[in-house]
Amino acid sequence: MTKKETSLSELGIYGLIEHINKKFKIKKETTVRGFNDDTIIVHLPNHQLLSNTLMLEGIHFDLIYTPLQHLGFKMVVNAITDILAMNALPEQIIVNAGLSTKMNLESTELLVSGMMAACEEYNIDLVSFKPTPSLTGLTLSVAVLGSSPLEDLVLRSGAQPTNLLCVTGDLGGALIGLHLLEREKRVLKEVDSVTPEFGDNEYVLRRQLKPEARKEKIDQLKKMKLKPTAMIAVKEGLAAATLLLCQESNLGCRIYEDKIPLSQKTLKTAKEIEFNPLIAALNGGEDYELLFTISLDDFQKHEDELSSIATPIGHITEKEKACRIISLSGDEINLKAQGWGNKES
Amino acid sequence: MTKKETSLSELGIYGLIEHINKKFKIKKETTVRGFNDDTIIVHLPNHQLLSNTLMLEGIHFDLIYTPLQHLGFKMVVNAITDILAMNALPEQIIVNAGLSTKMNLESTELLVSGMMAACEEYNIDLVSFKPTPSLTGLTLSVAVLGSSPLEDLVLRSGAQPTNLLCVTGDLGGALIGLHLLEREKRVLKEVDSVTPEFGDNEYVLRRQLKPEARKEKIDQLKKMKLKPTAMIAVKEGLAAATLLLCQESNLGCRIYEDKIPLSQKTLKTAKEIEFNPLIAALNGGEDYELLFTISLDDFQKHEDELSSIATPIGHITEKEKACRIISLSGDEINLKAQGWGNKES
Repeated sequence: MTKKETSLSELGIYGLIEHINKKFKIKKETTVRGFNDDTIIVHLPNHQLLSNTLMLEGIHFDLIYTPLQHLGFKMVVNAITDILAMNALPEQIIVNAGLSTKMNLESTELLVSGMMAACEEYNIDLVSFKPTPSLTGLTLSVAVLGSSPLEDLVLRSGAQPTNLLCVTGDLGGALIGLHLLEREKRVLKEVDSVTPEFGDNEYVLRRQLKPEARKEKIDQLKKMKLKPTAMIAVKEGLAAATLLLCQESNLGCRIYEDKIPLSQKTLKTAKEIEFNPLIAALNGGEDYELLFTISLDDFQKHEDELSSIATPIGHITEKEKACRIISLSGDEINLKAQGWGNKES
Repeated sequence: MTKKETSLSELGIYGLIEHINKKFKIKKETTVRGFNDDTIIVHLPNHQLLSNTLMLEGIHFDLIYTPLQHLGFKMVVNAITDILAMNALPEQIIVNAGLSTKMNLESTELLVSGMMAACEEYNIDLVSFKPTPSLTGLTLSVAVLGSSPLEDLVLRSGAQPTNLLCVTGDLGGALIGLHLLEREKRVLKEVDSVTPEFGDNEYVLRRQLKPEARKEKIDQLKKMKLKPTAMIAVKEGLAAATLLLCQESNLGCRIYEDKIPLSQKTLKTAKEIEFNPLIAALNGGEDYELLFTISLDDFQKHEDELSSIATPIGHITEKEKACRIISLSGDEINLKAQGWGNKES
């Protein structure tokens, strides 16, 4: 039996818009009106936050080994993490998608079902999905709205010397998962399944293909009434996140290699594929963890509870001391971040 | 002398972000904080509006004949028109750009200078520009925020039978301009100039390459305290806009062919390139005009002032009468819209 495939031209762009958008259930009182006018109407109290994320095929994902539901889920995780990193909660998202000729109604529905699952999981209204044809590859553009009293917001720029640097979860898994997938690319290409076999390497593959947003960490911090002094999302490795936070705060830092949280499962797969897990943590990407700074005072007051939220990995220094990592052997090494170019401390 | 070309890798992604974003001047009190945290903070009163627009190379623009400044300007016009069509004013925009390897620092600056010029023109804060590499083509994603009291907003769904259908400006010029450019593509390819020669066909080329947003029309309507019953942006031709408005309002309409505003200059070029100007008006695109409905009562009260804002082209009917255009010879023809598929009334 062949799977049903409905071409997008059969439905027409307006038909597709209607078909997809009618699936969305508005849950939030702050969402006043949905997709019908190419513009959504919301009524957000306090201050409003807006973030926009672009994900491009070939750069941010490879459809050969990325199931479309997972991609939809990950897109939401990626987009809302910027709002979470402000110590705020996301409220609404709207999505524009450039759909290549490879996409049909069924694959578009898979993609959207992943987005809907993530919005359900993180209590967000997915308010609008606007498709457009794409000549090249699948293009995803997401705008996220959040809302918060100004005094609760945490910026990258608020760190103070002697503050502790803490990071949620563990790092590097997503990049190790990516390398594993790249290695297996040819194998997976021949498998007709939307859910890859995670097997023994389930952890790192899950970190790459179905990452989680750290909303529960923000919920926990709020419950404890503990406000970090600065915060940033770890999207492009610990090094880039740390350098950006220190740059915005105009300070330096020391990170201790032996404190960087690495999962045993990540270490196991990293060894198997012969990839340095520390490099993955520092210069990898897509971990979607949160890096934040808190005062020593707050740390001492909340040490027990904090241990379930994040791992202290170092501390903030004066700017003159630069941003350095202390290796296992005690050497001080300048942090470097990847990108199109290199940014040094 | 060769023009200076700075590769993006020379600067690095963080260097580029810093270099571009420091150009932006925040003018609005509602913009609380700019780009530094991948998230902007605003404080918009009343209800908030959010719209997201995706523009893809090869689908929405061709860089062979589109100067980058013009593209930046047009991107803003395209994005803010959705907010204007709600009878509201845009406040902030944030941009994500997927930059292909063809782009360098200087061309990115040209693109951004066009965006900045448009934001200056329409009194909007351009708050953040986030680049990402693109393997395929130039990709532009824009999120626009607006704000308005709920009672001032105009939806597509508010039309009433006997309301007059009015459209601002004139239609079809942008498509005629596009056809002219496509014809001249090979010629322009060989010209090393960022500003094409508009010459005799200046009007249609300007409509295509440097369209305007109809903010002044909204300002005028507000000044007159005249609120349309329904409104929609004309982005993909008059037919699509009319059909969507009527569908959302659950009504039909009659449009009179002889009332559709066509510029003499558009007619002249259309004749020269042998393209039917009525088809351009109905099924063209990128006019960025506003189509709205008003009550007969309001029309009679404001007839003189309205004539400087828009042209009445027909009226709204009960749904059963369908959406039809009355041709010059008096025939009634069903309106049809283009897209991936066809939507008939």
